Amino acid sequence: MNIHVLSLFPNMFEGVFGSSILKKAQEKGAVTLGVTDFREFSINKHNQVDDYPYGGGAGMVLKPEPLFNAVEALVSEGKKPRIILMCPQGERYTQAKAEELAQEEDLIFLCGHYEGYDERIRQHLVTDEISIGDYVLTGGELGAMTVIDSVVRLLPGVLGNNDSPVLDSFSTGLLEHPHYTRPAEFRGMRVPDVLLSGNHAKIDEWREQQSIKRTFERRPDLLEKMELNPKQQNYLDILKSGK
Amino acid sequence: MNIHVLSLFPNMFEGVFGSSILKKAQEKGAVTLGVTDFREFSINKHNQVDDYPYGGGAGMVLKPEPLFNAVEALVSEGKKPRIILMCPQGERYTQAKAEELAQEEDLIFLCGHYEGYDERIRQHLVTDEISIGDYVLTGGELGAMTVIDSVVRLLPGVLGNNDSPVLDSFSTGLLEHPHYTRPAEFRGMRVPDVLLSGNHAKIDEWREQQSIKRTFERRPDLLEKMELNPKQQNYLDILKSGK
Repeated sequence: MNIHVLSLFPNMFEGVFGSSILKKAQEKGAVTLGVTDFREFSINKHNQVDDYPYGGGAGMVLKPEPLFNAVEALVSEGKKPRIILMCPQGERYTQAKAEELAQEEDLIFLCGHYEGYDERIRQHLVTDEISIGDYVLTGGELGAMTVIDSVVRLLPGVLGNNDSPVLDSFSTGLLEHPHYTRPAEFRGMRVPDVLLSGNHAKIDEWREQQSIKRTFERRPDLLEKMELNPKQQNYLDILKSGK
Repeated sequence: MNIHVLSLFPNMFEGVFGSSILKKAQEKGAVTLGVTDFREFSINKHNQVDDYPYGGGAGMVLKPEPLFNAVEALVSEGKKPRIILMCPQGERYTQAKAEELAQEEDLIFLCGHYEGYDERIRQHLVTDEISIGDYVLTGGELGAMTVIDSVVRLLPGVLGNNDSPVLDSFSTGLLEHPHYTRPAEFRGMRVPDVLLSGNHAKIDEWREQQSIKRTFERRPDLLEKMELNPKQQNYLDILKSGK
């Protein structure tokens, strides 16, 4: 997969692209990661990339020319990359979208910073608008890094056995059960006896019940979306009646 | 405000903490940002910070001692910082939470990476568990940067006039209306006439209607949460009847 980011703050990406899984994925050849400052594609002698909004109002708006030109310079003939705009008005990002994007060959991310985007960029250049959540960030850069991390870790060969996530909350549909490791007692806080029992049937049952309990307490919306088996449903009914 | 991050990948933060608003906010004295590798607080001769889960299963679990010790080393006497664990099981992050955290004096973020957390960390060390969205990331680092960016931009004096965001989607409750800037025509794509009309009453009306339309089409859940004035409600009714 080839990923390219257009941003006015290319330095922001250095630490994230140069560490951990994203670094390893590049070394293994699973992905190429590039960042271009789209100010280079300004057609203005002052290298201006934004301008005042038509109709008045606060803030600045990113002009169409630099982003259209930067994207065209990146796209090789015959390629149809997904062109993703990071913005608060976008589709809310989910694990399903990560899995969809992981099937692509080429992704290009457009990151604004403070500014709004000229509407022609949205309507005629981008294929996807993504928001990572309902909160205001200074720019699209952290959103792009977040999407890129979640996509690249799904590419074949990127996660080794040692990296296999215990945090698989959104693949099972339930939140994860509690984990414990050594020491069995730490400052008077003890690991639950069942986990030390060696009885694997009981451990599995405890973990499943804890997953359901945590999801019920913290994210009941997730339970509405999934089908529980009769045993799970029975446990959920007990939890509900205890309320 | 003082913000400190505990992470096994401190280099990941360099680009983000050293650019744009987070850099400026530090220069202005509005915030201090620190990162500590909590491997330094391992009590194990191999600097081990994680171990196998009790009860078996895939993946590794972060041990309690390094994180308890690292937090205690950071907290001055008499201080009660918010101690925030980034994890998929946490409360879903929102702009309201950003505004709440912006009132604090001290924030400490705990970032795991691949690993799960020993449950005693959740129950006896942290004050908040936050998830930035329903997708799987390799670690808590990008989540911590996201929360930090959204909080720091709210601190007094951090955003100058030039940075004033047009992207205020989550403050008005509606998604933003389209923006346009020069040129009035770009590759045959024209700016809507109303924005060039100079009639500010008409421009305001168009923008409000476009906000409602975009929210209705993309995020109807946001409309359910807000109270529209009669004029807005009337426009929404027209949109709905057109479906």
